[in-house]
Amino acid sequence: MRRIAIAPATVLHPHAVMLIGTYGPDGRPNLMNAAWGGICCSDPPCVAVSLREATLTYHNILSAGAFTIGIPSRKHVEVADFVGIVSGRDHDKFLETGLTPVKSEKVSAPLAAELPFSLECRLLQHHQLGSHTIFIGEIVGIQADEDVLGPRGLPDIEKTQAILWGGLGSHHYFAVGEKLGAAFSAGRNLRSLQPRR
Amino acid sequence: MRRIAIAPATVLHPHAVMLIGTYGPDGRPNLMNAAWGGICCSDPPCVAVSLREATLTYHNILSAGAFTIGIPSRKHVEVADFVGIVSGRDHDKFLETGLTPVKSEKVSAPLAAELPFSLECRLLQHHQLGSHTIFIGEIVGIQADEDVLGPRGLPDIEKTQAILWGGLGSHHYFAVGEKLGAAFSAGRNLRSLQPRR
Repeated sequence: MRRIAIAPATVLHPHAVMLIGTYGPDGRPNLMNAAWGGICCSDPPCVAVSLREATLTYHNILSAGAFTIGIPSRKHVEVADFVGIVSGRDHDKFLETGLTPVKSEKVSAPLAAELPFSLECRLLQHHQLGSHTIFIGEIVGIQADEDVLGPRGLPDIEKTQAILWGGLGSHHYFAVGEKLGAAFSAGRNLRSLQPRR
Repeated sequence: MRRIAIAPATVLHPHAVMLIGTYGPDGRPNLMNAAWGGICCSDPPCVAVSLREATLTYHNILSAGAFTIGIPSRKHVEVADFVGIVSGRDHDKFLETGLTPVKSEKVSAPLAAELPFSLECRLLQHHQLGSHTIFIGEIVGIQADEDVLGPRGLPDIEKTQAILWGGLGSHHYFAVGEKLGAAFSAGRNLRSLQPRR
């Protein structure tokens, strides 16, 4: 292995594919595909998503103080990519994808009924970082397809058939592959490595 | 599909597995496994990681103003899990895993030489959210194994053989599966769906 220095870039992988649901001031539902984000606090449960001010969703979140994050399944690859390509300013993305907008029971934001699960979020904080502003939402509810819940009563990645984005180094969507080990368990075998050096 | 409401939880998937490298005030290198985080700004390129105050890494980042984020490969599943189980207060995690700490050329933080690539980050902002504080680091450099670079000159997820964490609903590590489509391209086929409703 030859380790080299390369120029700074936003490369890190994998990424979850997050479909952000918001209402405009006129009540029109919109959906966008965001790659920069993820869970950021356990208590209260929070999720972060970073957006450029040029997006419609940026302004919708600020005006409504709420958003949803839906996680697409393998069958939604084209839909997920489409809502990331076009703008809600020119397109009714629910209509054009065939996804059904349903108002969240907890916050003023729509979710796409066909996705395996969606987080319902209340805007808690936002901070401007540069090109992007990070929006921190408290997860105040979850809507899920009962069939994707695992033994813990939470959406299970093997049942949701979630997809991932490979990031800037690859620019493709991928399926989740084979199971490699249990978290908080696989590492317990490592004591044997202690005398290694 | 039967859509039901479930209680708020930090469930979203997949997650990248991020190994955070820091120096203590005494110069001792430490490595931890963080699941809450990811890229959060394109310009300047920034990455976020959320940590509880109880962790050694939390204090190391604040005192050094810097950290690295290394992305493990499939062969590092046990190592990645191990550094998430034990604390740097009681363990020399580089020594016990056999990973080699190398000082970043750009910031005051160590990186693990054996990982496919590591982001070198300068602390830019931090915000307390609740149980966790979110640390925003500007990516000022990247160290990468030349062999994992793809056609774009960036670490390619198929070459790094990156792993993912399935999150709270599954609690397992997984490999990256098959390629499903190109980003900013797969969705262009969707125009045919427009007349659907």
